[in-house]
Amino acid sequence: MMNQRIRNAAVAAKVCTPESLIHHFKDGMKIGVSGFTPAGYPKMMPKTLADHVEENELQGQMSFTLCSGASIGADFDNRWASLGMTRARFPYQTGKDINTAINKGECMMSDRHLSMFPQNLMYGFYNLHDKAPEGQATPFDIGIVEATAIREDGSIVLGSSCGISPEVVKGCKKLIIEVNTSIPSFEGIHDIYTVDNPPNRVPIPLTSVDQRIGELGIQVDPSKIIGVIESRLPDKGRALAEPDQGSKDIAENILEFLYHERNMGRQPESLHPLQSGVGSIANAVVAGLATGDFDGCEVWTEVLQDSVLDVIDAGKLKSCSATSLSLSEPGFERFFKNWDRYFPKCHLRPSSISNHPEVIRRLGVTAMNTPIEVDIYGHANSSHLMGARLVNGIGGSGDFLRNAKLSMMHFPSTRPSKTDPFGISSVVPMVSHVDHPESDLDVLVSEQGLADLRGLGPKQRARQIIMNCAHPKYRDMLMDYVRMCERTIGFHEPQDLHKALGMHLALSDKGSMRDFDLYE
Amino acid sequence: MMNQRIRNAAVAAKVCTPESLIHHFKDGMKIGVSGFTPAGYPKMMPKTLADHVEENELQGQMSFTLCSGASIGADFDNRWASLGMTRARFPYQTGKDINTAINKGECMMSDRHLSMFPQNLMYGFYNLHDKAPEGQATPFDIGIVEATAIREDGSIVLGSSCGISPEVVKGCKKLIIEVNTSIPSFEGIHDIYTVDNPPNRVPIPLTSVDQRIGELGIQVDPSKIIGVIESRLPDKGRALAEPDQGSKDIAENILEFLYHERNMGRQPESLHPLQSGVGSIANAVVAGLATGDFDGCEVWTEVLQDSVLDVIDAGKLKSCSATSLSLSEPGFERFFKNWDRYFPKCHLRPSSISNHPEVIRRLGVTAMNTPIEVDIYGHANSSHLMGARLVNGIGGSGDFLRNAKLSMMHFPSTRPSKTDPFGISSVVPMVSHVDHPESDLDVLVSEQGLADLRGLGPKQRARQIIMNCAHPKYRDMLMDYVRMCERTIGFHEPQDLHKALGMHLALSDKGSMRDFDLYE
Repeated sequence: MMNQRIRNAAVAAKVCTPESLIHHFKDGMKIGVSGFTPAGYPKMMPKTLADHVEENELQGQMSFTLCSGASIGADFDNRWASLGMTRARFPYQTGKDINTAINKGECMMSDRHLSMFPQNLMYGFYNLHDKAPEGQATPFDIGIVEATAIREDGSIVLGSSCGISPEVVKGCKKLIIEVNTSIPSFEGIHDIYTVDNPPNRVPIPLTSVDQRIGELGIQVDPSKIIGVIESRLPDKGRALAEPDQGSKDIAENILEFLYHERNMGRQPESLHPLQSGVGSIANAVVAGLATGDFDGCEVWTEVLQDSVLDVIDAGKLKSCSATSLSLSEPGFERFFKNWDRYFPKCHLRPSSISNHPEVIRRLGVTAMNTPIEVDIYGHANSSHLMGARLVNGIGGSGDFLRNAKLSMMHFPSTRPSKTDPFGISSVVPMVSHVDHPESDLDVLVSEQGLADLRGLGPKQRARQIIMNCAHPKYRDMLMDYVRMCERTIGFHEPQDLHKALGMHLALSDKGSMRDFDLYE
Repeated sequence: MMNQRIRNAAVAAKVCTPESLIHHFKDGMKIGVSGFTPAGYPKMMPKTLADHVEENELQGQMSFTLCSGASIGADFDNRWASLGMTRARFPYQTGKDINTAINKGECMMSDRHLSMFPQNLMYGFYNLHDKAPEGQATPFDIGIVEATAIREDGSIVLGSSCGISPEVVKGCKKLIIEVNTSIPSFEGIHDIYTVDNPPNRVPIPLTSVDQRIGELGIQVDPSKIIGVIESRLPDKGRALAEPDQGSKDIAENILEFLYHERNMGRQPESLHPLQSGVGSIANAVVAGLATGDFDGCEVWTEVLQDSVLDVIDAGKLKSCSATSLSLSEPGFERFFKNWDRYFPKCHLRPSSISNHPEVIRRLGVTAMNTPIEVDIYGHANSSHLMGARLVNGIGGSGDFLRNAKLSMMHFPSTRPSKTDPFGISSVVPMVSHVDHPESDLDVLVSEQGLADLRGLGPKQRARQIIMNCAHPKYRDMLMDYVRMCERTIGFHEPQDLHKALGMHLALSDKGSMRDFDLYE
């Protein structure tokens, strides 16, 4: 199998066992890996290293700065975290153990928009204390990249994601390639295009979703390669629950709005390209396209989920582009089985391109993402519970919401607290952490309805959001707050700083936001 | 004079008096005007309309939605506001009366990044209830544009700013041109390039500050022109105070940092293009370039202030580009007197280009702006005092800070309150309004020092910001807060929502942030 996949002799000569590469890894090193929103991350070498640490009781003595495009498999991130192998983790994570380590302060993490992270790596912003002549930053001691083939010219054909792999390959001193023989070669799906550092940066020539502007593989200096290993571990598919009624209602509200925008001449017949976040609401929205009458629609996003296959099956998708193909296990099975139908419609690009403001603005993308909470004036929190506890990270939400033609956030109007099935309102007077300021968002949607905020001032926005998106159980409370602030505080965006975080405090002190008393 | 300036017969035939145009204006209309950060705004027609309202006691009976690139002269905005002529004002303002009207809720206003505003106008987002076929949105009933000449082909040569003038001309039903004969023709300084709406948008071909990609004037359908009037009213120059010691100290901290970045290979010899906000700190930073050893440096910004003339005089500026030339009165005098020296170095472009994320990222701009306040984790408030009272608006700060290679904010560490010369700390536990999330900012600077936040987690950032940027009078208070939160709240970004806004509340309730008691 390895012989079939590796079509370059110099690279083939580097095939070895993962165990033979352990000695390259030293405590404190900076490691860059492939992988984006659990797809296409290396599995064998991280597992081998973890086994080594465990077997030799090296916990805390082999600890790394770990960088990837976004999340990698929880099997990798959690195991490393639980063995004390991750001292710093950029720029995004999912997984219980890594999340705990970050929230305990055992692992350092810093949020950065996903389009900026690879750029800042190449600027040398993650190795500030090494002298790095412009354009030659080497942010990583070791890079580990999952591949599905090596071309005749030695270039690396990636697997189910691109992420920051071009920057890992270019920016590492030593490179390890894992060739995954358990999945087909993805040769042909990738469009590898990278941007130079200023002052040598030029326009990205991409003007449509299905356009190809780059190469099929990543060029690599072969002298960097310290080993090529085989992996037979497939991506851990991400299980997706069937959308619940709330998600379906949200999706319906969004589709109805898109029809309206089209009728008003603000969206073309087949819609502008759609960006859709990760999760069940996003999945339900995209699934809605399969039954809608938007023929020839396009998706320009970060992560392709199962529902995009439904839209292809329905004959309604012209093409889609992302940096990651993150399917469930049955989804991957379906993808591999109907390869000829799905493969030509899909394009995978580096996250520096999929998330680039330049391209997102140009294409006029419609962006849809889920926040933790929004406030009555239209600020959104995407990252920190109660302003403190990191969930995953800001991810690419800011790249899309700031640059889309139409920026939407969707959420269930309430979530349960420990003691109250309606204990947490997604609409609050003031969010406890802001990732997306009011100046970024056009439309908010819950299962209750849709608030179109375009062109509205704060006081009008508050009424739209409360009456259309908040749960009926919270509308009076929120309107009382608004009226009280307008009466006693006034100004352009009335906020009473004594009370603005009161619903959060009621939740933490009494168990439910419904226990907030404005006049207490 | 008008004959010399107007070189097209069809346009010359439309010359008339402003009084003869009054009848076109009806209550409730949407008016778009030229002008950006008081430069190049129309003066005669707005004044004539205000006189008409005043003389005929029409206060409140002729009220308009008024849109411009950014602020216009306070003489225009304040007079209209005080006569009840502005029912809505987008997207930015300066001026006591207009500000009061907005904060009282008498005038509606909504914040939007300045690069997005002209784009959203052409999307039809400000006339949602008119059917506007894609690409043909007509957001304005009447447009009023200040010109300094009309070319043979009838195209309009603007004056000291571009702003949203191309969108005003394209997006209005009727157009009034004011030819300002009190200043020279600016023909040759403008580079008028506009972007189409998606799906017809293409890469902006600009790759360097001094490159010209557009035309000298704005093309116009002559049948739209309802009148051409003469104006002899110059821009009200913006007086600039001499930088105080604090501003000089901040500028010095920034220049020292830029030298360091250059030494480390992260900035080229002549630096990447600089963006600098408006005001005395920004002026002092740019003035510092005149005495620094950055030969051939470039400025890519929104607004050019007087200090850029010093850098040209020192022979150190290769070129500069902005959407507005906003000089003081002596500055304009100096500019006109040494026209041949200054003019060829300066380029004025529409705000949709000067502030476009695509260009800002490509050029690797260093962005520098002043916030109202920042917090210990690196969020910034640029727009609302105490979370409620609008100052001016977000302006272009988000366009630059989100997309720059290096994003810096600079501020005095304290400001006086009514009762305490150190009553307001610019560094607080949690800002009362967020315009720029932590994920956008790299460096904070006060007269106390500089905090380099790149790659740091929240807990490290808090220590950098407090120890390097906060005033010594506030350091203990802020560090006590941080330690208390780490001990009692924990998590990734410890915030105690009971106390996070406590310094603000101490200011409003007791007169000084120094009166905050963490244990009260």
